[in-house]
Amino acid sequence: MASNQDRVGKFLRRLLQTRSSTEIVQSLSRADAPLPPRISGGSSVSDEDVESRWQILHLGEKSRSDLYECGSGGSLEPYCHNIENCIGTVKVPVGIAGPLRIRGMFASGDFYVPLATTEAALVASYARGARVISEAGGCVSILLHEGMRRTPGFGLKSLTEAGLFTIWCTEQADAMRAVAAKTTQHGELIDVGMAVEGNHVYLILDYTTGDASGQNMVTIATQAICEYVMENATIRPQFYYVEANLSGDKKATAHSFVTVRGKKVSAEVTVPAELVASRLHTTPQDLDRYWKMSAIGAIQSGSIGVQGHLANALAALYIACGQDSACVAESAVGVTRFEVTDKGDLYASVTLPSVIVGTVGGGTALPSQRACLEIMGLAGTGNAPALAEVCGALALAGELSITAALCAGDFTRAHQKLARGTNAQEKGDDR
Amino acid sequence: MASNQDRVGKFLRRLLQTRSSTEIVQSLSRADAPLPPRISGGSSVSDEDVESRWQILHLGEKSRSDLYECGSGGSLEPYCHNIENCIGTVKVPVGIAGPLRIRGMFASGDFYVPLATTEAALVASYARGARVISEAGGCVSILLHEGMRRTPGFGLKSLTEAGLFTIWCTEQADAMRAVAAKTTQHGELIDVGMAVEGNHVYLILDYTTGDASGQNMVTIATQAICEYVMENATIRPQFYYVEANLSGDKKATAHSFVTVRGKKVSAEVTVPAELVASRLHTTPQDLDRYWKMSAIGAIQSGSIGVQGHLANALAALYIACGQDSACVAESAVGVTRFEVTDKGDLYASVTLPSVIVGTVGGGTALPSQRACLEIMGLAGTGNAPALAEVCGALALAGELSITAALCAGDFTRAHQKLARGTNAQEKGDDR
Amino acid sequence: MASNQDRVGKFLRRLLQTRSSTEIVQSLSRADAPLPPRISGGSSVSDEDVESRWQILHLGEKSRSDLYECGSGGSLEPYCHNIENCIGTVKVPVGIAGPLRIRGMFASGDFYVPLATTEAALVASYARGARVISEAGGCVSILLHEGMRRTPGFGLKSLTEAGLFTIWCTEQADAMRAVAAKTTQHGELIDVGMAVEGNHVYLILDYTTGDASGQNMVTIATQAICEYVMENATIRPQFYYVEANLSGDKKATAHSFVTVRGKKVSAEVTVPAELVASRLHTTPQDLDRYWKMSAIGAIQSGSIGVQGHLANALAALYIACGQDSACVAESAVGVTRFEVTDKGDLYASVTLPSVIVGTVGGGTALPSQRACLEIMGLAGTGNAPALAEVCGALALAGELSITAALCAGDFTRAHQKLARGTNAQEKGDDR
Amino acid sequence: MASNQDRVGKFLRRLLQTRSSTEIVQSLSRADAPLPPRISGGSSVSDEDVESRWQILHLGEKSRSDLYECGSGGSLEPYCHNIENCIGTVKVPVGIAGPLRIRGMFASGDFYVPLATTEAALVASYARGARVISEAGGCVSILLHEGMRRTPGFGLKSLTEAGLFTIWCTEQADAMRAVAAKTTQHGELIDVGMAVEGNHVYLILDYTTGDASGQNMVTIATQAICEYVMENATIRPQFYYVEANLSGDKKATAHSFVTVRGKKVSAEVTVPAELVASRLHTTPQDLDRYWKMSAIGAIQSGSIGVQGHLANALAALYIACGQDSACVAESAVGVTRFEVTDKGDLYASVTLPSVIVGTVGGGTALPSQRACLEIMGLAGTGNAPALAEVCGALALAGELSITAALCAGDFTRAHQKLARGTNAQEKGDDR
Repeated sequence: MASNQDRVGKFLRRLLQTRSSTEIVQSLSRADAPLPPRISGGSSVSDEDVESRWQILHLGEKSRSDLYECGSGGSLEPYCHNIENCIGTVKVPVGIAGPLRIRGMFASGDFYVPLATTEAALVASYARGARVISEAGGCVSILLHEGMRRTPGFGLKSLTEAGLFTIWCTEQADAMRAVAAKTTQHGELIDVGMAVEGNHVYLILDYTTGDASGQNMVTIATQAICEYVMENATIRPQFYYVEANLSGDKKATAHSFVTVRGKKVSAEVTVPAELVASRLHTTPQDLDRYWKMSAIGAIQSGSIGVQGHLANALAALYIACGQDSACVAESAVGVTRFEVTDKGDLYASVTLPSVIVGTVGGGTALPSQRACLEIMGLAGTGNAPALAEVCGALALAGELSITAALCAGDFTRAHQKLARGTNAQEKGDDR
Repeated sequence: MASNQDRVGKFLRRLLQTRSSTEIVQSLSRADAPLPPRISGGSSVSDEDVESRWQILHLGEKSRSDLYECGSGGSLEPYCHNIENCIGTVKVPVGIAGPLRIRGMFASGDFYVPLATTEAALVASYARGARVISEAGGCVSILLHEGMRRTPGFGLKSLTEAGLFTIWCTEQADAMRAVAAKTTQHGELIDVGMAVEGNHVYLILDYTTGDASGQNMVTIATQAICEYVMENATIRPQFYYVEANLSGDKKATAHSFVTVRGKKVSAEVTVPAELVASRLHTTPQDLDRYWKMSAIGAIQSGSIGVQGHLANALAALYIACGQDSACVAESAVGVTRFEVTDKGDLYASVTLPSVIVGTVGGGTALPSQRACLEIMGLAGTGNAPALAEVCGALALAGELSITAALCAGDFTRAHQKLARGTNAQEKGDDR
Repeated sequence: MASNQDRVGKFLRRLLQTRSSTEIVQSLSRADAPLPPRISGGSSVSDEDVESRWQILHLGEKSRSDLYECGSGGSLEPYCHNIENCIGTVKVPVGIAGPLRIRGMFASGDFYVPLATTEAALVASYARGARVISEAGGCVSILLHEGMRRTPGFGLKSLTEAGLFTIWCTEQADAMRAVAAKTTQHGELIDVGMAVEGNHVYLILDYTTGDASGQNMVTIATQAICEYVMENATIRPQFYYVEANLSGDKKATAHSFVTVRGKKVSAEVTVPAELVASRLHTTPQDLDRYWKMSAIGAIQSGSIGVQGHLANALAALYIACGQDSACVAESAVGVTRFEVTDKGDLYASVTLPSVIVGTVGGGTALPSQRACLEIMGLAGTGNAPALAEVCGALALAGELSITAALCAGDFTRAHQKLARGTNAQEKGDDR
Repeated sequence: MASNQDRVGKFLRRLLQTRSSTEIVQSLSRADAPLPPRISGGSSVSDEDVESRWQILHLGEKSRSDLYECGSGGSLEPYCHNIENCIGTVKVPVGIAGPLRIRGMFASGDFYVPLATTEAALVASYARGARVISEAGGCVSILLHEGMRRTPGFGLKSLTEAGLFTIWCTEQADAMRAVAAKTTQHGELIDVGMAVEGNHVYLILDYTTGDASGQNMVTIATQAICEYVMENATIRPQFYYVEANLSGDKKATAHSFVTVRGKKVSAEVTVPAELVASRLHTTPQDLDRYWKMSAIGAIQSGSIGVQGHLANALAALYIACGQDSACVAESAVGVTRFEVTDKGDLYASVTLPSVIVGTVGGGTALPSQRACLEIMGLAGTGNAPALAEVCGALALAGELSITAALCAGDFTRAHQKLARGTNAQEKGDDR
């Protein structure tokens, strides 16, 4: 309810039109009715357990069958290590943007990129961007840096002890590395940073994680390091937490840019002015002009980084490919830059400091998700760096396309047409 | 590649072990091979068009059938207004957390909340939080404010003209409202703010959007307003863009807290100390202590707001319920607060300034997504405010559960057990 | 000590070279020696009180006389309402940049701007910028908005009560305005916003403050409003604080841009390409190119806004003119924008959302400070808006000059020459 | 003019009451009158040059003598390396807070801290905080880390070249160190970080700078490094700038916390509950409660870090001691933390990641400024680390005092009494 009196007043008047403040208080009051049954069964996806969950939900047969086709016994089996209290699957439509020509260190070639979304016009927009990039000779996309982070916190008696504790910790980097190595074959502790705040000390532990996105791997390794610290430190902390929220896990942070979280990628393309005109219906000059206005718009909004809609690319690709879709919160941060080259062409680049992707672990082995990775030839071991470079290239395609749409005045039209459809418009539907 | 020399050096050495710098340059160089065929057909989901797309992708039959069951003719029909270049659907498993007792203004009762995720332990964690909240008598969750925003930008000749233009605009609020009203039956322009930056003027247009999340609706209304402005302004701008990136669309911004983007919700619960002990295996004091350390951790990372993992709740609920999953980027911002009450119990609250949800439009009418909304009784018109209050309550459940896990030392164990499974551990698998 | 192991290790090795860790612990340990005498006398600047303070400090006669010329009885009298425990005055040299031609709504004409600084090259740089602006016909500088803010916080029993409390508050805007009016003849409450976070409610009170910067005025008015609230609210808060740190007082915040804190000013100038060449030794194109790189540099650093060195202008002007120099922390935030115009000239603008200035109150009536205001014709009542517009124009001059120096390669040379001086260089001095 | 229609309308109505929009346009229009004479003479402070400057300013004799006592020939001589276009000095009153007992690694003992300010109540508040700290046995204050930064930017042809350029740079750390060493006896290059953004590469160069704050020193060293790079790089950049605005120079940035800018300091004190009661008129519990509300207030405002008024301490100390007062913009960032200890006492700490201080260079050798340093025994070589620790301790004193005033309800009263004075109140004066 943060706003000025006028706005707050309007909102409240609208609200109080629908109910009295007595009714509001009543609905907010404590009710002591007995709770209905809990959903249970944990990881089990046996027919009985799934059926027992459905019994509780009281959903109509039609709706139920949209989530779970009973009789298709064992069809939820693949999901037993990825979900609890499972009742079925939600189907997210997948469209293809491509070919997208990428000249990466790891991703090299022409990619058909699967995007899972329910938002009309999204795939069309990325497809258009991919086409422009490809016709321009492809984009370069480079994995610049990597490191998955955990940041355990330690509480000391005093700032003095905190200082002495950090002195001890700096001498333990090799020992910590060895401790971490015992917990994983694929990950490696590569950096031990520290931040002292009064009598609190945060360790900033960075790891490589092979082809997994690695949050789980680094948690287990960090737990082992914490236990090592608590047993061996000459100044024993009074308490510790395996993660003290400095890592940026599941949230956008300013910290990422000057370090890295997950994988840092940059991608660029130079698009000839004629191609900008023929495919994007605008000019490099107008794109550059828009870039300035939108960059300063973003800055005034207090965003982290400046970009258009990285989240669209990442959410759709993450869902399609079995990535952790909550990581969109941390990954959708970056810098987009448009410029006119000396020759009058368009230079465009994106830089994403926090791409969180893996090609093993998480949801990557689930049937439809694995199929999406296979479409790109990126399923399984050895492919995580390439997948990160695809993220960069895809994001670049999207930034090109949306910016061009805003410049050419296509933005509203495209959404109007694809989202509402002809019938929708006839019916006067609006959403 | 932002880091210090030591880190950069390590990364490069690892990289150059796998390939020479000549090989790198070669793979980044321009290739002029002809492009493979484009995926096409746009919105069509006819068997022929889908089949023709699959022809291009060259995927094995097994993988293909995981995304698209051919012969199930017309099965993609429901998706034709939500995707382009469609080739099938990705299946995301859905688990239920609940019952979650909510005492909201709009959401009132015991909810079974569907969560779509591929991350093990996530549903279990939210289920645990929901149980604690419900056993504590339920949480209050209140929709505090609403307003969906577009921020068109106008380029004037000079700052002087920019000033005069804003004077004109302030007199046009009623006219703009009328123009917007012609484009939508459900939305209403409720505020016209302005930001001048040199010779650029940003309008900050806020709308109510009925039960839709409304991005499309406000884009169309804003387009009409921009056209009205360009035709009628006494000082005509040299150019304009319908969105100049100050709106916070698809990105986390600091701006949200003191205004609102979408729906602002706050939820709270008081959990008796005994319940904290029996269900969460920790104490209100330890949760409070962790809160302080983690809040300052987040602050040092340069996050917007301070919270644990709002993104997990929102991503899983958004995907299950046909919301725009890219909005996780903007919605996963907020404040979590834990305190010990005078009686020694736990007070916990969350405040989310940017919940972007609707119960009509977007993917809400797709079969499995609509079924998820129906599980909560929130499908269709009249339910968006309640869905927002569910988001607040669910987020609160998650913050309680994860924080307790970190305090009790369960965090690592839970992930280890649920994600890797028994077999996985035996095989020494690590991800 | 936040950094990676390499950096932390280096720092500690350097540290431990100078002392052992035992010595460190000792120096950090508690000493129970009796405390030396306290400085006292409060606001008094009588010779006796000042003398008694000096007795305690044991400073050599020469140094003492640099701060306080004894025998110049009563010379500290002017300061008695501006300082406590006074021992004398520090002398900060003042240089003049100007004439600076300003075409403002309030500041109109050619200004000689007094700058107090001890940093070599600073005045020279602003003087250069002022010259270019003036030769280009002057800059436009416009006061865009104003409002000084206090944000009291109220603790309620529950979120439900917080909601009801805000309903009550929205009905009290007029009453609050009347309460505020009783405390001041010059200020006026102009807005009452609210932010609910769980069971906490922040009021966001914005005031006009006449020609004072007004922090004191709005504190007193807000205190009266809080007392009114505590006495009259139908739902009485459990506690309140007159300022709950949402106001941005004495700190840079993202909030300022989309609202205002103090005075919001924008200034612009168009500089012909020839003038850029002749006076700044660079080109509009290079300035534009630098702008892009530096804007993205700032963004990656997690700054609020993007600008070069607004702080230099504001600190020097604030100190010279008796402003609250701590407000540099909140004022040195803004947006600088450089562009090449269609004709190939340079367009430059700055926008400062948080200029905190007054021409009455604070240090504005002190002798040397008032003289500085008089140099600009801006001492006393009626001049605060003009002073804000001077801030904008001056900031623009500085952004022009420093950016040009960085483009032309003069930046290092200028500092080298002016700061170290010829003798300094001969002596091999370096600082 | 960023706000909603109601606010904008109000502001414009107030404005247009005082003048018509025609008058506004006229005053913003270009005037072509000849410019008045320029202030000149550069660094010279000879009587003639100073006199000639005064001739231009047309100030009354009384005011003039407040800035410059003519006849006191040569009195401006000390300032000739610190200012240009000098016309005299502004006198800022200095008050003493102390004794402040500090248990630092470098600052150890009881300090009388000189504060230059024109804001009533400021010194009194810090004096109160210092008293409480000292009576509690003193505070620990520790220099945790240091590093002054310059961040030159290099423009390459392409992202590919940018990547190759960084590979080359990582091999040049030793060479760069040697190049830097030739430019300074006191500074040392200690880290070479890199950030790639498209075809732009930023070097992040960190230095130690001896007892100088060092901005000048690192600029000169970085210039030399840039020239070395341009001459020797196997891939030669197309252009470079010695500072590309990623360094945080003169601005608050999120980057500081996890690295350092200048000097990072943390200070802590434990204050017995009785002392909190007797001296601060509040309780540890209330201070803790306020801390939570104010921390979340700051977070909602989008501040960097959470703290009360670090800027007041730093601005007053920086001005008194000849520091660069514009650095308040970057230094007034940090974390303040209050907690109740197990024994019911108050634990308080501050952490400042960006203290920018020196005891040589800048204004530290000017007469009155040097005297202020001498009061603390910190003038000249060897004292910069101690001065940083004093900053931490002083900041802690201020955070304690202001927070207590807000809790005890003294905040408004103190300002009312000290700023307005008795007479002022009688006169009904308000500012």
